[in-house]
Amino acid sequence: MTDGILRLSHVDVRVPDLELALAYYSEVVGLVVTGHDDDRAYLKGWDEHQHHSLILTAAPTYGLDGLGFKLTSEAELDRVAQRVSDAGIAVERFHPGELAEGSGVTARFVGPSGHTIDLEYGMAQVGNGLPLLNPPPAPDDLVGMHPPRLDHVFLLCEDVDGVTRFFRDVLEFRLTEQILADDGHQLTTFLERSHTAHDIAFLTGPDGGFHHLAYWVDEWNDLRVAADTCAYHGVPIDAGPTRHGATRGCGLYFFDPAGNRNEVYTGGYAFDPDDEPTTWTEAEMGRAIFTYRGQVDQGFMTVHS
Amino acid sequence: MTDGILRLSHVDVRVPDLELALAYYSEVVGLVVTGHDDDRAYLKGWDEHQHHSLILTAAPTYGLDGLGFKLTSEAELDRVAQRVSDAGIAVERFHPGELAEGSGVTARFVGPSGHTIDLEYGMAQVGNGLPLLNPPPAPDDLVGMHPPRLDHVFLLCEDVDGVTRFFRDVLEFRLTEQILADDGHQLTTFLERSHTAHDIAFLTGPDGGFHHLAYWVDEWNDLRVAADTCAYHGVPIDAGPTRHGATRGCGLYFFDPAGNRNEVYTGGYAFDPDDEPTTWTEAEMGRAIFTYRGQVDQGFMTVHS
Amino acid sequence: MTDGILRLSHVDVRVPDLELALAYYSEVVGLVVTGHDDDRAYLKGWDEHQHHSLILTAAPTYGLDGLGFKLTSEAELDRVAQRVSDAGIAVERFHPGELAEGSGVTARFVGPSGHTIDLEYGMAQVGNGLPLLNPPPAPDDLVGMHPPRLDHVFLLCEDVDGVTRFFRDVLEFRLTEQILADDGHQLTTFLERSHTAHDIAFLTGPDGGFHHLAYWVDEWNDLRVAADTCAYHGVPIDAGPTRHGATRGCGLYFFDPAGNRNEVYTGGYAFDPDDEPTTWTEAEMGRAIFTYRGQVDQGFMTVHS
Amino acid sequence: MTDGILRLSHVDVRVPDLELALAYYSEVVGLVVTGHDDDRAYLKGWDEHQHHSLILTAAPTYGLDGLGFKLTSEAELDRVAQRVSDAGIAVERFHPGELAEGSGVTARFVGPSGHTIDLEYGMAQVGNGLPLLNPPPAPDDLVGMHPPRLDHVFLLCEDVDGVTRFFRDVLEFRLTEQILADDGHQLTTFLERSHTAHDIAFLTGPDGGFHHLAYWVDEWNDLRVAADTCAYHGVPIDAGPTRHGATRGCGLYFFDPAGNRNEVYTGGYAFDPDDEPTTWTEAEMGRAIFTYRGQVDQGFMTVHS
Repeated sequence: MTDGILRLSHVDVRVPDLELALAYYSEVVGLVVTGHDDDRAYLKGWDEHQHHSLILTAAPTYGLDGLGFKLTSEAELDRVAQRVSDAGIAVERFHPGELAEGSGVTARFVGPSGHTIDLEYGMAQVGNGLPLLNPPPAPDDLVGMHPPRLDHVFLLCEDVDGVTRFFRDVLEFRLTEQILADDGHQLTTFLERSHTAHDIAFLTGPDGGFHHLAYWVDEWNDLRVAADTCAYHGVPIDAGPTRHGATRGCGLYFFDPAGNRNEVYTGGYAFDPDDEPTTWTEAEMGRAIFTYRGQVDQGFMTVHS
Repeated sequence: MTDGILRLSHVDVRVPDLELALAYYSEVVGLVVTGHDDDRAYLKGWDEHQHHSLILTAAPTYGLDGLGFKLTSEAELDRVAQRVSDAGIAVERFHPGELAEGSGVTARFVGPSGHTIDLEYGMAQVGNGLPLLNPPPAPDDLVGMHPPRLDHVFLLCEDVDGVTRFFRDVLEFRLTEQILADDGHQLTTFLERSHTAHDIAFLTGPDGGFHHLAYWVDEWNDLRVAADTCAYHGVPIDAGPTRHGATRGCGLYFFDPAGNRNEVYTGGYAFDPDDEPTTWTEAEMGRAIFTYRGQVDQGFMTVHS
Repeated sequence: MTDGILRLSHVDVRVPDLELALAYYSEVVGLVVTGHDDDRAYLKGWDEHQHHSLILTAAPTYGLDGLGFKLTSEAELDRVAQRVSDAGIAVERFHPGELAEGSGVTARFVGPSGHTIDLEYGMAQVGNGLPLLNPPPAPDDLVGMHPPRLDHVFLLCEDVDGVTRFFRDVLEFRLTEQILADDGHQLTTFLERSHTAHDIAFLTGPDGGFHHLAYWVDEWNDLRVAADTCAYHGVPIDAGPTRHGATRGCGLYFFDPAGNRNEVYTGGYAFDPDDEPTTWTEAEMGRAIFTYRGQVDQGFMTVHS
Repeated sequence: MTDGILRLSHVDVRVPDLELALAYYSEVVGLVVTGHDDDRAYLKGWDEHQHHSLILTAAPTYGLDGLGFKLTSEAELDRVAQRVSDAGIAVERFHPGELAEGSGVTARFVGPSGHTIDLEYGMAQVGNGLPLLNPPPAPDDLVGMHPPRLDHVFLLCEDVDGVTRFFRDVLEFRLTEQILADDGHQLTTFLERSHTAHDIAFLTGPDGGFHHLAYWVDEWNDLRVAADTCAYHGVPIDAGPTRHGATRGCGLYFFDPAGNRNEVYTGGYAFDPDDEPTTWTEAEMGRAIFTYRGQVDQGFMTVHS
């Protein structure tokens, strides 16, 4: 085993109205804007040091354009990209700055789930807004929910078993949790590289589908702040604040103005490479998703892009 | 860069009265006892899967007997142990179970700080007390502070610069923060392998010295629970609940019955290998340690073992 | 204005299976049992000093048997009882211990909402389980949600305008909030005597109807503990943790084994007698009840007893 | 017993530099400024409806100029003022607006502790900044600690026994807690009218002395926000966040730029008129004040005005 993928690095989502989306993500979610042109905006959680963890791209429809993983070195990027090639998937190579403002060297491919995936190393570092000498605990100009960093992304695909196998065997992810159908196939899987409960998860649905992106917040109390912020700005809350059975984390779901589902998430656990995955049965899927209600609204499963 | 050391695995502390210490760590701190004989007791945070993160050893004096890091594989253990040997330090090899109940294959050496350090792979996995099928969010028999897992250890040594160099160059740690004396030498350093604010830290003092061990708790609210627990049981609180400047985490310090300082800690941040370390000046050392008071009690710096 | 009613004192609910209800209220909700015979059980929040705030009465159906208000003196009890008589309502007088174990002197009447109401003074004081000399902050044997005290009760009646007028004019309550129908009549009213956001509230529905009883908890974090407790014990959660628009408080709703809705509630505000009431329009009723979702499940409005 | 004093209404403190104090109380503490001239500034917690709970008066020294209690009616004001007169203390009467911007009708006297005390009814109501129709949970322009309201004041006097007797017998306060010297006299007493753990407390010291004023915050988490705010602005923290033994509340102490001690406080309990007071022995005074440390810094007891 070698270092390989460090963590989820960024998510690229489509928004029909870029200015509206930018206002929402910067003022309501409270992300920091690090770049902006006519077609795209770049944002990050306040405590992230790299250039962006969210790219907003103007497009006729909402949904996911792609996601990127951060590699620990360029050599590791080469090694993992080679594994993808060896698996029979075409990989395209990009120079720093070629794909996005501040982007690092990147190997891009379309995975078996139909999502465009970047393996990236060397994204520009812009700092977290605090001085490197005698800093205060936080900047004093944070607004909205101001999550410190990106946490995970939740996608859909037709063949969760096959996609999960690819993530484990080729991209070297570990399986932390799974929801199994009564016939034994995987309905949902949770996968990690960062020793957390998940960096990415897959739910059965159409290939290329996007369920939500999640930013981390530090505490349960921050979920109330986030929900109050939604209420104040008229942002539609989809579910929560609540606790998940799978991952044991707590979260709040809501929608950006384009219809992309967002989550702020906290809790979960540390996962070692030799820990055993947890399994949920189909009968307990409601509790696996929402511990408190023990059931999932139809909308939560069917509304996605 | 390769995987190498995953995280701090366990701490081995001396206690003159093993039964008293065991009662304290199991009932007040709320750790789970996984093994116990006449000379030693083994404990872990409830959400840890491996056999132990704390070994209590009966001894005439209190203090630290050693600490262990978890490696990602036996091959990585061999590689890092070779780096230690190459640095001119004698390394001794132990079979699984040879050093402690449940211990994995281990390479042991005495580091330049005078502390005994284990590189370990394959400690027995005992699970976190939750079923692997449809689990509840937590066991229902937790008592006391019940931290989920070990977080970091804080040691003393005479030559912080040299020890820090060894940890960075040989053991492949990253420096996250440092307090510099006016003449430029390092008074205190914070080092990580687990992408957190610190797995280990060194403070200027006598070689082999032990300042505190820290267990993780999830939220600020848990620090109040911990402080109430101390108050209820008459456990002497040394400092906190408070926030640290360095690491930005929040913590509570208190003493076990033998005099070993404990901390429960939460917060901090995620640290990427390419993030820049933060520096504190000697004049701001008080704020680096305790943000709120902006000063450090003399006892906090001078009481250790 | 004189002292009159101090606060809500107790609620008397019917349960078909007394033993099951007692197990639930003592172990899951974590109330303290202060008395118990074949037909009735008496319970209180741990920090209440008086004998009971909840009476469980064995009965074929679930629902509310009555509620009691605590008066500040027997003279005040006489004065308020006289006001009720003067309003043309029959009042019956009971000696201490005559109505319930530990009950004080009581004036009982059936109010215009069809609910049996006790005006009570001198219920037996049993203490909060802490010593009166050098106490710790809390008893160490609390289980479940362990709310410190009763907070409010939420009832139904056909003529909310008329009932509210009775509570204001005769019982000297203050109106804190109201939801008005488009035609101007009161759909829901919130009334207080204890300088809080509400001691009692009325929702349009059948006379004698019972929506929920609410115990106080100190913080938002306690609502997560309560929800985890429900999840652990399989107690059905009806809504929350969430924030209310009206009262600005936060709450969690769930059902006892008999079907009586319970809430644990925190937050809200201090209300002075000369503060102005807040009004919600019918169009904003969803937000008045559940700020975060901005809508009320049909079940929340229609499921009651 | 009749309504009498409702609660602590306001505190009047002296500050040598009015502009500096105003900046501190409005931007760091986050109170709302409701009036301001060359000699005085008026402020209130954001959720208070009346004109002010804090008056800052320019003066050569810091300390307390007086405090006011809110009465429930003018008739009650007359009644309580008569009781003060009957106790042989001169009472002076003032018209609305005569003593301060927005002040109500007031009966002023100097109590046996040497403090100037106002009995006041009818202070101007200015609202809490939220609309009375379909309000959001909070204004969106709050800054700093933004406590919702004043909670209590802590004073010094030579004869705590005598002053406590006056507050109980003449002003109709209830004793909630007391710290007794070994010889049986009262070292510290806690007194309430608002059914909380205390509206006012007295500590043995010079007559007319001022220990601190306390604003309420809703939760333990707000104490960390307050401490972070102090740290950010360089405001000296005196103690906390911590828990008190007496009142069981949690608080943070810090100083305004003039040297007046402030607290933000949360928790405590509801106190009924027939509840028994709690007593602390002199030997346990440290724990009565600061549960966690179990001891009181000399500065905490001796630094006052």
